[in-house]
Amino acid sequence: MFGARCLLRALRSCSSAPCPGHKPSAKLSVRDALGAQNASGERVKVQGWIRSVRSQKEVLFLHVNDGSSLESLQVVADSSFDSRELAFGSSVEVQGQLVKSLSKRQNVELKAEKIEVVGNCDAKAFPFKYKERHPLEYLRQYPHLRCRTNVLGSILRVRSEATAAIHSFFKDSGFVHIHTPVITSNDCEGAGELFQVTPSSKIKVPEENFFNVPVFLTVSGQLHLEVMSGAFTQVFTFGPTFRAENSQSRRHLAEFYMVEAEISFLESLQDLMQVMEGLFKTTTMTVLSNCPEDVELCHKFIAPGQKDRLEHMLKNNFLIISYTEAVEILKQASQNFTFTPEWGADLHTEHEKYLVKHCGDTPVFVINYPLALKPFYMRDNEDSPQHTVAAVDLLVPGVGELVGGSLREERYHFLEQRLARSGLTEAYQC
Amino acid sequence: MFGARCLLRALRSCSSAPCPGHKPSAKLSVRDALGAQNASGERVKVQGWIRSVRSQKEVLFLHVNDGSSLESLQVVADSSFDSRELAFGSSVEVQGQLVKSLSKRQNVELKAEKIEVVGNCDAKAFPFKYKERHPLEYLRQYPHLRCRTNVLGSILRVRSEATAAIHSFFKDSGFVHIHTPVITSNDCEGAGELFQVTPSSKIKVPEENFFNVPVFLTVSGQLHLEVMSGAFTQVFTFGPTFRAENSQSRRHLAEFYMVEAEISFLESLQDLMQVMEGLFKTTTMTVLSNCPEDVELCHKFIAPGQKDRLEHMLKNNFLIISYTEAVEILKQASQNFTFTPEWGADLHTEHEKYLVKHCGDTPVFVINYPLALKPFYMRDNEDSPQHTVAAVDLLVPGVGELVGGSLREERYHFLEQRLARSGLTEAYQC
Repeated sequence: MFGARCLLRALRSCSSAPCPGHKPSAKLSVRDALGAQNASGERVKVQGWIRSVRSQKEVLFLHVNDGSSLESLQVVADSSFDSRELAFGSSVEVQGQLVKSLSKRQNVELKAEKIEVVGNCDAKAFPFKYKERHPLEYLRQYPHLRCRTNVLGSILRVRSEATAAIHSFFKDSGFVHIHTPVITSNDCEGAGELFQVTPSSKIKVPEENFFNVPVFLTVSGQLHLEVMSGAFTQVFTFGPTFRAENSQSRRHLAEFYMVEAEISFLESLQDLMQVMEGLFKTTTMTVLSNCPEDVELCHKFIAPGQKDRLEHMLKNNFLIISYTEAVEILKQASQNFTFTPEWGADLHTEHEKYLVKHCGDTPVFVINYPLALKPFYMRDNEDSPQHTVAAVDLLVPGVGELVGGSLREERYHFLEQRLARSGLTEAYQC
Repeated sequence: MFGARCLLRALRSCSSAPCPGHKPSAKLSVRDALGAQNASGERVKVQGWIRSVRSQKEVLFLHVNDGSSLESLQVVADSSFDSRELAFGSSVEVQGQLVKSLSKRQNVELKAEKIEVVGNCDAKAFPFKYKERHPLEYLRQYPHLRCRTNVLGSILRVRSEATAAIHSFFKDSGFVHIHTPVITSNDCEGAGELFQVTPSSKIKVPEENFFNVPVFLTVSGQLHLEVMSGAFTQVFTFGPTFRAENSQSRRHLAEFYMVEAEISFLESLQDLMQVMEGLFKTTTMTVLSNCPEDVELCHKFIAPGQKDRLEHMLKNNFLIISYTEAVEILKQASQNFTFTPEWGADLHTEHEKYLVKHCGDTPVFVINYPLALKPFYMRDNEDSPQHTVAAVDLLVPGVGELVGGSLREERYHFLEQRLARSGLTEAYQC
């Protein structure tokens, strides 16, 4: 079907026997169980991991989570079900009736008729403790288990929703999705340090004969997308990208995912900014509406104070200022910067932060950058004496530069001149 | 928002001035123009590349394509518009009225009021000729232009639709999408020859200090997904995968895209096959309904005779046979095979082809393979004397093995025994 080999594998970590006596229960995710309207005793089966156990005289309360949502499902069982095996971390299959809960904490709960322990968990050996909030640094030691924590669960659900929303946004806007190559011999505009790819030493073919040329991991799909936009008008990719920068920080990942798009026949930065703003707002709104609890958790524990800011961003149009205006704002700032703001110099993180704050903690498009700062292919605004190009960066509170783009220079003699000035003419003639 | 840096860039290849006099026309893709119901003279603007020019005494006919669909939009213009620049391959912007067409060949056409040439095309230098169908081998020489041909356009639109459909299928079925790492130090189950990744020689850091261990391009995300399924129950990935096999064939790409999924608490191959069949049918039906003309073109020129087969596949349930039955069928075949079919031996391509044909040219699940043929983690069926595991391969007409999967062995002592027997105990203890 689609030029790619498909493998689908299944993990079996369960060995329960069919439940005799009852008619088979419908299997339900915790998310779907929690979302059930007017629960009135339907027989269902829920599977997941125990997040808490509370044993009272006559009743046993379990909270079961299967990763489909941050919230767990409360299971109410007769105390006769109590057993050592029903411990924090164990995986269980619960069959019973989905009913309205009398407590205000949840709408529905599961009245257990059968509880089966699928996998035991030795609470002593298990690195996470009940009701303890472990620091992220501690969780790093347990990559095979840490996704069962609230924080990592939420982040990965949000990432999954955001990924889907990005694909939907472009599809709904008529873009064709392109898988640009990961292994490539070009390094785009020299966007960063490269990783080289070679067949591993076990292989007998002489290395230089494998691809005929040295090959690297992609730093950008831009060149491939530009070609594709010359056939499909609107194209995008959303794939892995690589930088061989040996510094361990949030800003320097060796491998990360990047959205790139190319649009033909585009006539103004305005049209481009509309796509950028649309992508940002649509993705954010989808995430907010599909996993509100996960976002709430981030606002509570990871980035407090972001909630109001986010709503503010979504309600208002993003601001647009020119690079020249931005430099004026920075020059008049009462703040002292490490890098003195000056027309013709790059905007540094400290400048970006100030600009965003100055504009009311809202996303700001900065447009029309000095020609000398930008690559040769960006469109000359012919606005001497300043001489800028039609480039745009989107600065976002708490992030800095999130998206960048430009109109491309389509006038042949402009390109020739710029190539010559950059000393690229020879490379271009090869 | 999503741990990934976003770049959005725009290609400007147009320099038309705003059209004076009229109120601005709505920009429309060719696909949307062609799909317009009850066109009655709305003013629209369409941009694209000229696919054909037919000049009559008083009328000029152009066909304009923008890659949004296989079909082009017919533009009808007064002969006064005629110009040498309106040539095959040129890009144009046409403004005019969208009207019902009198011809039976199309529903709508664009009555031109203004035609602007955005980019010229020198027909002599342009490698593709009007009305000629160029062989794929010839097109290979022009990777920057070949996507403007019907065949490559159709294939890439189908791929884009299939990609979106795969994402939707899993999302709608409650799976969490995971970006499994591309750079990794594990080689999964030794699925193939590896590519090694090293920082390119320009970087001053000693190679061995970059990641601390040798790293490779992923051959499968299975191990990472297994971990994730222990938190989210149902997970999938759809990313690039690599094999350093130095043979140039359809079956041996160095880089390809693979769908992988893991499901916790799965109790039977039946449930697994349901997911596989659902993925296949949903994706296929989405493609058929969203780009019927593209699929039609494939049926006409690339794979004749597939059309009826495809409809047959979608209408009927896939068949299920055991490996043992499959071997029996092969043994009784009148055909001579290069590899004699025998219980305990792998099924070869010739066997797969025969089985699919024997079963009525329809997809067939082959289940329960000999334990000795499969990796240690597949679930023992305990069906001595045969001794099989709960593995499944989906064989598809015209493709062969399209999807594979298995139940995983969850019984600790079985795993210990299998590891010991495979001589893996030491590796496992490290």
